[in-house]
Amino acid sequence: MTDSNILTQIDAHIQQNTDYWLAQLARLCAQPSISAQNIGIQETAELVATLLREQGYHAEIMPSDGYPVIYGEGGAGEKTLLLYLHYDVQPPEPLELWESPPFEMTRRGDLFYARGISDDKGHIISRLAALAAVRDVLGELPCRVKFIIEGEEEVGSPNMPTFIWQHKEKLAADACIWEFGGVDYNGTPMQSLGMRGICYTELSVQTATMDAHSGLGGSIFPNAAWRLVWALNSLKDENEHILIPGFYENVRLPSALDLELLAKLPDYAAQLKQNYGLASFLKGIAGGLELKQTAVFAPTCTICGLTAGYQGAGVKTVLPAKASAKVDFRLVPDQSPEEIATKLRAHLDTQGFNDVEVKLLGGGRPAKVPPDHPFVQLANETAVAVYGKEPLVEPMVGGSGPNYPFIHVLGLPVVSAGIGYPGSQVHAPNENMRLDYYLLGTRHTAYIIEGFARMA
Amino acid sequence: MTDSNILTQIDAHIQQNTDYWLAQLARLCAQPSISAQNIGIQETAELVATLLREQGYHAEIMPSDGYPVIYGEGGAGEKTLLLYLHYDVQPPEPLELWESPPFEMTRRGDLFYARGISDDKGHIISRLAALAAVRDVLGELPCRVKFIIEGEEEVGSPNMPTFIWQHKEKLAADACIWEFGGVDYNGTPMQSLGMRGICYTELSVQTATMDAHSGLGGSIFPNAAWRLVWALNSLKDENEHILIPGFYENVRLPSALDLELLAKLPDYAAQLKQNYGLASFLKGIAGGLELKQTAVFAPTCTICGLTAGYQGAGVKTVLPAKASAKVDFRLVPDQSPEEIATKLRAHLDTQGFNDVEVKLLGGGRPAKVPPDHPFVQLANETAVAVYGKEPLVEPMVGGSGPNYPFIHVLGLPVVSAGIGYPGSQVHAPNENMRLDYYLLGTRHTAYIIEGFARMA
Repeated sequence: MTDSNILTQIDAHIQQNTDYWLAQLARLCAQPSISAQNIGIQETAELVATLLREQGYHAEIMPSDGYPVIYGEGGAGEKTLLLYLHYDVQPPEPLELWESPPFEMTRRGDLFYARGISDDKGHIISRLAALAAVRDVLGELPCRVKFIIEGEEEVGSPNMPTFIWQHKEKLAADACIWEFGGVDYNGTPMQSLGMRGICYTELSVQTATMDAHSGLGGSIFPNAAWRLVWALNSLKDENEHILIPGFYENVRLPSALDLELLAKLPDYAAQLKQNYGLASFLKGIAGGLELKQTAVFAPTCTICGLTAGYQGAGVKTVLPAKASAKVDFRLVPDQSPEEIATKLRAHLDTQGFNDVEVKLLGGGRPAKVPPDHPFVQLANETAVAVYGKEPLVEPMVGGSGPNYPFIHVLGLPVVSAGIGYPGSQVHAPNENMRLDYYLLGTRHTAYIIEGFARMA
Repeated sequence: MTDSNILTQIDAHIQQNTDYWLAQLARLCAQPSISAQNIGIQETAELVATLLREQGYHAEIMPSDGYPVIYGEGGAGEKTLLLYLHYDVQPPEPLELWESPPFEMTRRGDLFYARGISDDKGHIISRLAALAAVRDVLGELPCRVKFIIEGEEEVGSPNMPTFIWQHKEKLAADACIWEFGGVDYNGTPMQSLGMRGICYTELSVQTATMDAHSGLGGSIFPNAAWRLVWALNSLKDENEHILIPGFYENVRLPSALDLELLAKLPDYAAQLKQNYGLASFLKGIAGGLELKQTAVFAPTCTICGLTAGYQGAGVKTVLPAKASAKVDFRLVPDQSPEEIATKLRAHLDTQGFNDVEVKLLGGGRPAKVPPDHPFVQLANETAVAVYGKEPLVEPMVGGSGPNYPFIHVLGLPVVSAGIGYPGSQVHAPNENMRLDYYLLGTRHTAYIIEGFARMA
């Protein structure tokens, strides 16, 4: 049981050191680190290592197959907590929509604006502030802490799985706090326990060395756009059934506990319909548990883009030599992107589409933490203590991220905690952080660290 | 029977007046007239009227539902020949590929370069030169001549059918020479007697008011790209069979004479395969009469363009709210674009694609002249006299043009004759005219005019 006096002191420490940490955040936000454009990567890696060293951590900049990763270490004790974060940010464009310079932290009321301030530089600072509070109040850190702060999260973390495999021993730990976390529209804390995997492919066809006039070739030349349409049509029928043989073979159904958690989540059906102007959801689903379950526990086959021939205004009578589609499969446990890419290729060959080339542009496996894991319970209980309400626990979310190697290679329970809120405009102009959610997220992180050290 | 002395004098007249007509051609080419960009239309219409008046013709600039049409008239006699031409040109872009300014006629050897010099300003001048030769040699024009010179041919002649309907009496004639003509790769004269019609449509779907993240919506949101793929797939199967009910209902098979003419045409199979890098033709057709017949006497359903969602490099996990396709149907007698558009709409509705919007972006009916018409015979015989070889007669070509109202509203036999050759780069940079083909095409036109006046 935690001495409530300790938590009170932690709260006070965080509150009292707000200005110091906001100054560190301003310093970090002033350094651009745009992974998609290879801007400021090395400089930011060095600054992050410096910030860690200033707090007394050992820090090293480790090479990866892509941009460098900062590894940090400190504290002592039998148990080790791993903190996964990233120092890269999304491109700031369109610049004209920013109300203040994206790489100059600007305060307006209790909102702080900068590119990356929420995603993910504010989280780096919040973790350091939480650790400093726990350390100063207890006299020393009650556990070992490891940092892994990567520079490619905003471009899909392509090298994280390999990096983790290669440094499995060094990264060994007992639990992990993920790079994000925060509250929903009502200020209720959110806990996300799993993410779908992804198999992102590009299907392309080339039927000739150049486009032809449609009057010349229409009756006799193969047409790349038609080949593509027929190939795509073979992947999924109008009832949303994916037709690739074996596609559903490794799909694990949600557990009773997963469904129980889904049932407790708010029903966003009406809000989604309104936000996106939808007439209805697929397969006649109205909302409720069926919608929540389908949204995250069903694998998908989504056409993300189509391109062929003439796409301008009016008429151009051209017969396209090339056509391509981006197709994204969201995967659920225990599917894998390699498995799906192999089955896709075999299916196209069987259907006579040997002319359709498949490129695997990105992949990641699905992974989830059991909702009844003690570390998850700790994160939930501390959320109640900080936010004054039960967190909404999502057993799985529809998106994807590199959580698989943390959960299944390092074998860690992974929880989210942090400073995010729905108005933070991540990836958009005027990305921002709210002071109250910064303080709450930092306290939550500190409470998890303090509690983790005492966990059985 | 023509006095061969008359033809010799016509030849000499054309030869002796070359410099004069080249100067007129330079004057006409110096005036840009880009219909797609609405550049120089009125100025060119006035210049063309002036050129006609300088030759003693009555000329007037008539309004149409689009750009003005020049109507010209001259000569006397019982029979009337209609000359269809156009004064607009294709845009000159890409400018950097031109070796001399596109609107400044430039001579290099016996080639003359300028935008529109072959298509169609050279033909306007060639017709005037031919008429002047016949008039001067005979003392007066042996027939009545009418000109109809439009300014929207390069944007699909959208207003020509209505214009002809509206001025049916004024345009009444006995025969028509089309705006193009010339020789093939071997210098053999070509005669084209028909063109396929066209029904150019845009199919579009909108399933939401904005794109969604594919992780959020993949399992539950309707996807415009999928709707489009399924709708397109319902139009044509992989064996090239068009599935719209009643699509083939009004297809008239080629006549025995049509097939006889096709059989005499060279087999371009190997050349087409090489030029376009094709592995094979559709439906396993190797070449020969089957290829020639399919290429022009089969109606088509061609996807000219596809567009949806993300089309850049790499990965973007987006679920498209909008998707569209350009779909071009080439029609054969007796299909019509209105009929096909109606059947397409009905088919989509029957198949459950009420969400797919169809816009008719352009349409024209197919039309052909009977190969055994006496005016066609005249064009063929005079071609032999001028070029020294039998013309290749195409009963139908794969492309489309506004010949329907000339053939079926005005009731005219329409033949081609002119200055074109395969190296003339029409629609491309460095469009050019060869002096020898200018002289041959002009003589052929003059011989047709001279012979027409004496036809039974």
